[in-house]
Amino acid sequence: MKTIAFLGLGTMGSPMAVNLCKAGYTVHGWNRSDNRTGPLLAAGGRTAASIREAVRDAEVVITMLPDAPQVEEVAYGPEGILANALPGVLLIDMSTIAPQSSIELARNAAAHDIRVLDAPVAGGEAGAVEGLLSIMVGGDADAFEEARPVFEALGRTITHCGTHGLGQTVKAANQLVLAINMQACAEAVVFLEKSGVDLETALDILSGGLAGSNVLTRKKITFLNRDYTPSFKMGLHHKDMGIVTDTARAIGAAIPLGSVAAQLMASAVARGDGGLDHSALLRGVELLSGHGRPQE
Amino acid sequence: MKTIAFLGLGTMGSPMAVNLCKAGYTVHGWNRSDNRTGPLLAAGGRTAASIREAVRDAEVVITMLPDAPQVEEVAYGPEGILANALPGVLLIDMSTIAPQSSIELARNAAAHDIRVLDAPVAGGEAGAVEGLLSIMVGGDADAFEEARPVFEALGRTITHCGTHGLGQTVKAANQLVLAINMQACAEAVVFLEKSGVDLETALDILSGGLAGSNVLTRKKITFLNRDYTPSFKMGLHHKDMGIVTDTARAIGAAIPLGSVAAQLMASAVARGDGGLDHSALLRGVELLSGHGRPQE
Amino acid sequence: MKTIAFLGLGTMGSPMAVNLCKAGYTVHGWNRSDNRTGPLLAAGGRTAASIREAVRDAEVVITMLPDAPQVEEVAYGPEGILANALPGVLLIDMSTIAPQSSIELARNAAAHDIRVLDAPVAGGEAGAVEGLLSIMVGGDADAFEEARPVFEALGRTITHCGTHGLGQTVKAANQLVLAINMQACAEAVVFLEKSGVDLETALDILSGGLAGSNVLTRKKITFLNRDYTPSFKMGLHHKDMGIVTDTARAIGAAIPLGSVAAQLMASAVARGDGGLDHSALLRGVELLSGHGRPQE
Amino acid sequence: MKTIAFLGLGTMGSPMAVNLCKAGYTVHGWNRSDNRTGPLLAAGGRTAASIREAVRDAEVVITMLPDAPQVEEVAYGPEGILANALPGVLLIDMSTIAPQSSIELARNAAAHDIRVLDAPVAGGEAGAVEGLLSIMVGGDADAFEEARPVFEALGRTITHCGTHGLGQTVKAANQLVLAINMQACAEAVVFLEKSGVDLETALDILSGGLAGSNVLTRKKITFLNRDYTPSFKMGLHHKDMGIVTDTARAIGAAIPLGSVAAQLMASAVARGDGGLDHSALLRGVELLSGHGRPQE
Repeated sequence: MKTIAFLGLGTMGSPMAVNLCKAGYTVHGWNRSDNRTGPLLAAGGRTAASIREAVRDAEVVITMLPDAPQVEEVAYGPEGILANALPGVLLIDMSTIAPQSSIELARNAAAHDIRVLDAPVAGGEAGAVEGLLSIMVGGDADAFEEARPVFEALGRTITHCGTHGLGQTVKAANQLVLAINMQACAEAVVFLEKSGVDLETALDILSGGLAGSNVLTRKKITFLNRDYTPSFKMGLHHKDMGIVTDTARAIGAAIPLGSVAAQLMASAVARGDGGLDHSALLRGVELLSGHGRPQE
Repeated sequence: MKTIAFLGLGTMGSPMAVNLCKAGYTVHGWNRSDNRTGPLLAAGGRTAASIREAVRDAEVVITMLPDAPQVEEVAYGPEGILANALPGVLLIDMSTIAPQSSIELARNAAAHDIRVLDAPVAGGEAGAVEGLLSIMVGGDADAFEEARPVFEALGRTITHCGTHGLGQTVKAANQLVLAINMQACAEAVVFLEKSGVDLETALDILSGGLAGSNVLTRKKITFLNRDYTPSFKMGLHHKDMGIVTDTARAIGAAIPLGSVAAQLMASAVARGDGGLDHSALLRGVELLSGHGRPQE
Repeated sequence: MKTIAFLGLGTMGSPMAVNLCKAGYTVHGWNRSDNRTGPLLAAGGRTAASIREAVRDAEVVITMLPDAPQVEEVAYGPEGILANALPGVLLIDMSTIAPQSSIELARNAAAHDIRVLDAPVAGGEAGAVEGLLSIMVGGDADAFEEARPVFEALGRTITHCGTHGLGQTVKAANQLVLAINMQACAEAVVFLEKSGVDLETALDILSGGLAGSNVLTRKKITFLNRDYTPSFKMGLHHKDMGIVTDTARAIGAAIPLGSVAAQLMASAVARGDGGLDHSALLRGVELLSGHGRPQE
Repeated sequence: MKTIAFLGLGTMGSPMAVNLCKAGYTVHGWNRSDNRTGPLLAAGGRTAASIREAVRDAEVVITMLPDAPQVEEVAYGPEGILANALPGVLLIDMSTIAPQSSIELARNAAAHDIRVLDAPVAGGEAGAVEGLLSIMVGGDADAFEEARPVFEALGRTITHCGTHGLGQTVKAANQLVLAINMQACAEAVVFLEKSGVDLETALDILSGGLAGSNVLTRKKITFLNRDYTPSFKMGLHHKDMGIVTDTARAIGAAIPLGSVAAQLMASAVARGDGGLDHSALLRGVELLSGHGRPQE
């Protein structure tokens, strides 16, 4: 089996690296800080003291990092991937970054004879742990086919979206629709409560028709209980909305609702709600409506 | 079986009256114009030349009209329901009107010893024809139980939402979420197409995750083909958004996305798209994005 | 000099009636409650116990009321203007109501041989006291010329805007631009303060260029001191934004920023800020920005 | 008199460099392309074949460039300012870039013993030609005082806004308020025209009250004639709105109207109107309103 360097052992990266071990890969993990290496070691993986050490023998390098600046630092520095990985290696960036950043990474890596796939994921921490991620892949079809077994150790829905950056594009569109729909449901919740209708009854009715959505179904309990324990943090979705709005500007796509939803997420973060679940958009609607209902 | 006066034999009302005939009710239909009575007569119903004649012997009066002014005219005029129906009759208004209008109707009717339910529906013309409507009912629980057999001849999901007006409230919340989510998907479509990704592939991915919704699934073909043959007309959704925004103002519920979505629907109607399916919100996003793709 | 019936002696109406007395008119004032008649009596006016009594001998009837329902009640009831005023009288409605309501009032009054002008004002309580209002008039040119001396006793800028309702149209456009510009300045205030720049210095710079406006100049102290003593109450501007949004829907005029501004005003009222000056839109921006600065 | 290197001889930079010559400075101009050097040479200035040559003897270096990437290229490259200017030189960046970019420039330049002021301007091409610019300056007070004579050759209103980046902050706030107010007026124009009122009459009334602004006054003819000959191009204001929205995100300032205005500008650029005056926001409102009025 192949040797994989896995760079970025955070909330998502750590269980993903573990799943690769379980699938039989030799995994050399690296993280900026040491304290996230426990699960990988327990699963039989190794850890590397530096990026250089991690990528030295790897046939595949996976990055799972917070945003483009981290990816660029890990890729481009003198101690980074491009300068130290083997020629011919396959670099799979599973971070969510701007499509344009993915395109530039692929171009820069090509000069080092390194092939790149952008492969952002959806499904959250639960999906990472259970190997049920949805993986959206951009890059050459040959590289995609070569990486398929790796992806199959990590996720369930694996789709080749097209050329470099288009995995990121689909992820961005996903975050766009999700943010808007989340806010839509939050607006409906306050509208319904202020009218005096039983919220659960009403949400069940909405779920049954054309207005129904996975947000309405899966977040119903969240809305009913105002329990904002994060499954996906507002602060991360806020970061993603930055990618969405920047990309929309760059390609000339109008996102009138998307831009307002991005504003409302930015407002939530500015008010200190960045660590809550993104469904805490509801708290913003309550604030605007003078609708005090305490978080349970 | 009971005798039902059915006032308003339009696109929705006509097949609903037919279904009541099929269920064994004696139906006296009335419509402002004569030309919509054919299906009811063919189903064994009768037609009345006036509201007075239609309601004279009825135990139940159903109204299915475009908006509050029509309901008020049919209810309040000297030739109308309140002045001519039997004391004790049950008036079921299945029109989509403002919650406040439903509350006033119930109060005014009570002075004539007429009980009222507001019972707006979702499910469109197909749901009306097939008896698969979702019916959201406001009013007294006793009246709701009395009306249940009538509702069961018309729909599949029948819910008592609470007191007078709350059926309309839930319908309004449904239209709010639906309009926003429709626009969200339209924004994603242009965002994806302008990026160069295959639209169908991308929409399928989105459908599989938390961003997934009935709009994404059921309107996928519409978005792919730009075929805006109406299953629910923009002009009607626009009317409903007027109810949503007025009600939100009245109750002090913030709907930042809802108000922008209402604007975009109003814009579509102003541009002449009121007769297209409400998914033609996509045409507005194309317009704003300078993204010409002809309707197929 | 003519005899004028003045109906509605509120914050605006009371000083306006006084100015008409000062100009030599015989003024018969009427108010729903008695407690607002003092200034008029002190200025030599009379008060009437009923609308009927007030309008009986009047050659001109002026109404200055909160909104269309009050105007309609005062105009249409059996004790109201149309039923009791002399034929040939000139009815000047100086309330701010929907253009469509003004059009209907003119049509209904014509059946009683009563001519109508819509003549909403701008300039606030100070303008009413000092006789410096801006008056926007809709209706026939002949009636406008006949009323001109009356207007000159009340205001400085008096403009015939066109046919019935167009005075209201211009007033509505004024409130639209004003609400948006007020919110724009509020957004800039928080943007500047959060950046750490000296607010007064920055607002002075903005005032000097193309971004400069009467809001920036006249409300600078308000923004600096967070003193929201009302010169125009948020709740009234909120009412006006209802007219703006309804009219925009009716005529098919897109107001994307106007609708968001209307939302933010509605939010302010829902949060309990309806009695503050409309510049308290700034409090909403602070709330959204997690930018606590106490009201002084 | 001092020797000034002036880098960037575009629409704004060329007349500014000329004004410095007229004020007696020795000006060494440089432009990426040769074709903009004519006016400077005619005014007695010199031109340099490279940045290195331009800055070699300069006591003051001024940059007037389109955006941050150009500033960074000119500043940071091996042939750039930092590597080639004399220690102790004063670098005045008069480009409009993000406050954060200005802060970074100041920090990087300090390592080369180069002091920096950010000094973006308002007033357009006419202001540049006539030496009537408004100049907003960020940086140390001593450097500001040292630069004051230079600024006085270029503008009329010269303000020290505070530390590094705060000149850009004030400029960004200016563009924010201006974009929103421009769009507000555009919405009012269509609202008024669709209502049938005479536009000029109505705009004059609005100008006289609290809704009045420099946009209403100076752009009245533009709105009346639909003559979008640029005094400030939409594409440039669009660029500036990118700075505004990025900065607002970074500092946590809510700009609900600002983000919608930014969307509408982005939409105008996407539709091909980037080369028109920014008042062509009116074309977007017309488009949304189905309100065809040909450009004159």
